[in-house]
Amino acid sequence: MAQSTTADAPAAMPLDNLKTQLADIANLEQAASLLSWDQETQMPPGAAPARGEQLTTLAKIIHEKVTSKVLGDTLQQSQQALTEGVRDEDKVLLELTDRMVSRSRKLPSEFVETWTRAVNASHHAWIEARSNNDFQQFAPHLQTMVELSRKRADYLGYDDHPYDALHDLYERDSSTATIKRVFADLRDATKDVLAKIANSGTMLSDAPLRQDFDETAQEEFAAGVIKRFGYSFEHGRIDRSVHPFATSFSNCDVRITTRYEDGFLSPALFGTMHESGHAMYEQGIAAKFQRSPLGNAASLGIHESQSRLWENLVGRSLPFWEGAYPLLQETFPKQLEAVSLADFYAAINVVSPSFIRVEADEVTYNLHIMVRFELELDLIEGHLHAADLPEAWNTKYQDYLGISPSTDALGCLQDIHWSGGSFGYFPTYSMGNLMSVQLFNAALAAEPSIHEDMRALKFDKLLTWMRNHVHQHGSLYTPQ
Amino acid sequence: MAQSTTADAPAAMPLDNLKTQLADIANLEQAASLLSWDQETQMPPGAAPARGEQLTTLAKIIHEKVTSKVLGDTLQQSQQALTEGVRDEDKVLLELTDRMVSRSRKLPSEFVETWTRAVNASHHAWIEARSNNDFQQFAPHLQTMVELSRKRADYLGYDDHPYDALHDLYERDSSTATIKRVFADLRDATKDVLAKIANSGTMLSDAPLRQDFDETAQEEFAAGVIKRFGYSFEHGRIDRSVHPFATSFSNCDVRITTRYEDGFLSPALFGTMHESGHAMYEQGIAAKFQRSPLGNAASLGIHESQSRLWENLVGRSLPFWEGAYPLLQETFPKQLEAVSLADFYAAINVVSPSFIRVEADEVTYNLHIMVRFELELDLIEGHLHAADLPEAWNTKYQDYLGISPSTDALGCLQDIHWSGGSFGYFPTYSMGNLMSVQLFNAALAAEPSIHEDMRALKFDKLLTWMRNHVHQHGSLYTPQ
Repeated sequence: MAQSTTADAPAAMPLDNLKTQLADIANLEQAASLLSWDQETQMPPGAAPARGEQLTTLAKIIHEKVTSKVLGDTLQQSQQALTEGVRDEDKVLLELTDRMVSRSRKLPSEFVETWTRAVNASHHAWIEARSNNDFQQFAPHLQTMVELSRKRADYLGYDDHPYDALHDLYERDSSTATIKRVFADLRDATKDVLAKIANSGTMLSDAPLRQDFDETAQEEFAAGVIKRFGYSFEHGRIDRSVHPFATSFSNCDVRITTRYEDGFLSPALFGTMHESGHAMYEQGIAAKFQRSPLGNAASLGIHESQSRLWENLVGRSLPFWEGAYPLLQETFPKQLEAVSLADFYAAINVVSPSFIRVEADEVTYNLHIMVRFELELDLIEGHLHAADLPEAWNTKYQDYLGISPSTDALGCLQDIHWSGGSFGYFPTYSMGNLMSVQLFNAALAAEPSIHEDMRALKFDKLLTWMRNHVHQHGSLYTPQ
Repeated sequence: MAQSTTADAPAAMPLDNLKTQLADIANLEQAASLLSWDQETQMPPGAAPARGEQLTTLAKIIHEKVTSKVLGDTLQQSQQALTEGVRDEDKVLLELTDRMVSRSRKLPSEFVETWTRAVNASHHAWIEARSNNDFQQFAPHLQTMVELSRKRADYLGYDDHPYDALHDLYERDSSTATIKRVFADLRDATKDVLAKIANSGTMLSDAPLRQDFDETAQEEFAAGVIKRFGYSFEHGRIDRSVHPFATSFSNCDVRITTRYEDGFLSPALFGTMHESGHAMYEQGIAAKFQRSPLGNAASLGIHESQSRLWENLVGRSLPFWEGAYPLLQETFPKQLEAVSLADFYAAINVVSPSFIRVEADEVTYNLHIMVRFELELDLIEGHLHAADLPEAWNTKYQDYLGISPSTDALGCLQDIHWSGGSFGYFPTYSMGNLMSVQLFNAALAAEPSIHEDMRALKFDKLLTWMRNHVHQHGSLYTPQ
């Protein structure tokens, strides 16, 4: 076998052996991701139970491998064989592996199996409930996911709050206390901005975006935009799904999904830009880190910084549309030839409270996250029962955004996350928002022509900066 | 865990345990099949190497599990615990598992890994070579596959001929000697039929099929036909691929692929019917046999009997087209309104030597198989080197069909099989042809109205007969 031929120095042997085992684990994870992608985009409706079993087996085997004695021993030997002058990346690899192994060992194999099966059942119940707009159909599954998540947190362990253990799965070096602190500031700042907008005397309209737009033309335009951004179709593709996402099966196969609305241009256009940001991150992780824990993104916050950067800081900017708007007008002459660039730019930047998080404007977006953060804390702490979620949701929306959805499909059934047990995930969206601005400003300082380039629809300097400073490093550095 | 709760009798415990382990293996095989399906239908071009690694890991783990001590011990305990009055299906399950385990144990783990990686490289080299019409680009890979197959046969063991060991992977209870004997008779019978046709004084034409047919309309018509046959789109879907196939990830997710030619109606129309026959077989295997070796088809010959039955015995029959032709004319009025049913029926049944196996008529089809069978024997025996295949191929075609292809794309590069190391597979096609007639006649004898029903585009009696007598049983009975 290619991977286990004799190494230069005997001391390198356990590390090579470890890398081979980690590659198998990564390959299994990638296979599971493909099964999930297929489930959302291609799978025939009657296949759900069998897919659940397949995913459960993969999860079980991944867990077995990560917690196996042989991996543990190889890790220990590799740690002992660590010599002076070892490469940083090998040192980090051992730390990340150690972290992965000890975390997995805290979860009993039976729990992993129960968890995976419950996630699958809950996910399908959510799809059904959402399309029927019938939350109570989903409620028992949600309650199960809450209870299993609480159990998961107990297994994983925490100092201050069970939510810490869950949040840590998505964002390293963060905590419930940190989020609360950041959100307190963010809440005040957001209120200030909203007050200024309300008192500005100007009233923007997104009416130009709410016309009839042919889906195929939308798809072609959005694909053209992200191709210019630098998304590689040689190593990816776009499909359709109810809830858009990006998913990676190595840096040479990173796929995104989009959803289309005939009567509203924004979801597909900005959704595709958003997912392309995630995808370009994954496509840019160094080849040498593939099939190892180093090949994962640094954190979900960093991930979100990339999607928000391309969606908002590029995709909703004036320079970009100075270049791109004539092309959009060409694609939709009937709808847009009478709409000026200024009106279009205003339309895509209207700030207005809305029900759907993924369609929210940049200012109110974080309020949607705060609602979810507070509700998931209540759920995990046991103060809120799943069956009572709709009422609590609507109350929070009234409180934060001044509006209350008339249906649960527009309310607490809109997001996929909780159905999959992803409690602790939402705050990474707001963290990503904040980081996107930090990173964009750093890139701008290094490459002042970035805005000028956008006008010419050139993005290579911006992408190269992100590639060099963020993407290629995978998990080599911590988010901080 | 649901699967390992206490059973009624202590004696049943090892068998339950065995079934749980077999379910994991089946789930991994299904996951690997999905990765392969994706590779042929959806995967971006740059992703091939990563996919190869993912498939290699899955193959390695499947092999590890099948050959593991724990499975071996559980099998032995289950065999010892076998009591009088045990269900037949449990007895067969143990036999099939025993067969699978002892076969896998003959193949060293390193060989399985080398094999899987070589299959992947060779498959991609074949795709490249085929699209460039450059056989020599593929030749070294083919030679590797020949040599690895020879080695595989040596590992598996055989009495008379290494080809026996390979053929046995696809068709139980068959042998090189059996094929030679059947093919000798079939060759003579085919020559007789061809001579009669040549001397009949009638000359049929397939010109009506060789017009411009819109792809989407072709797709819709073909999908409509197989829906009437009984293919469930609730548990399957149609995609496009270079080489059409059917693949199953449990009986509730059985997908088929088709290829379309604008200027020729037959490939998509009869190809879709063909693959639907395979797929309806898989969709019909009993739910209780899922995720176990009993849930596999009885053999590839039986599999092919189902595809050929729907393609030829239904799809090229006069009664079927008496019902279906008006619908086809409605779909393609410009091309077909002036073509009579008799002329169309003649067109789809023209007998004429051709280069491409999958487009061959019913009479000459088996000659294509004989060419391949003789060539793969020569390759495996070492009398023929891969580099010399084109010349040998063309000579055999001249000999058997009286024509010789001008390019290797029309010749020895047309089939996917050898690129994947599937030596010993081709004869099952001819065996399936013969079995399809036997099974169809048996069904006709039991349900004499089958021809009448076809005219009304009703197929439930035919499908129900196949379900009851073939499909549902999976591997419970041997092909014989």
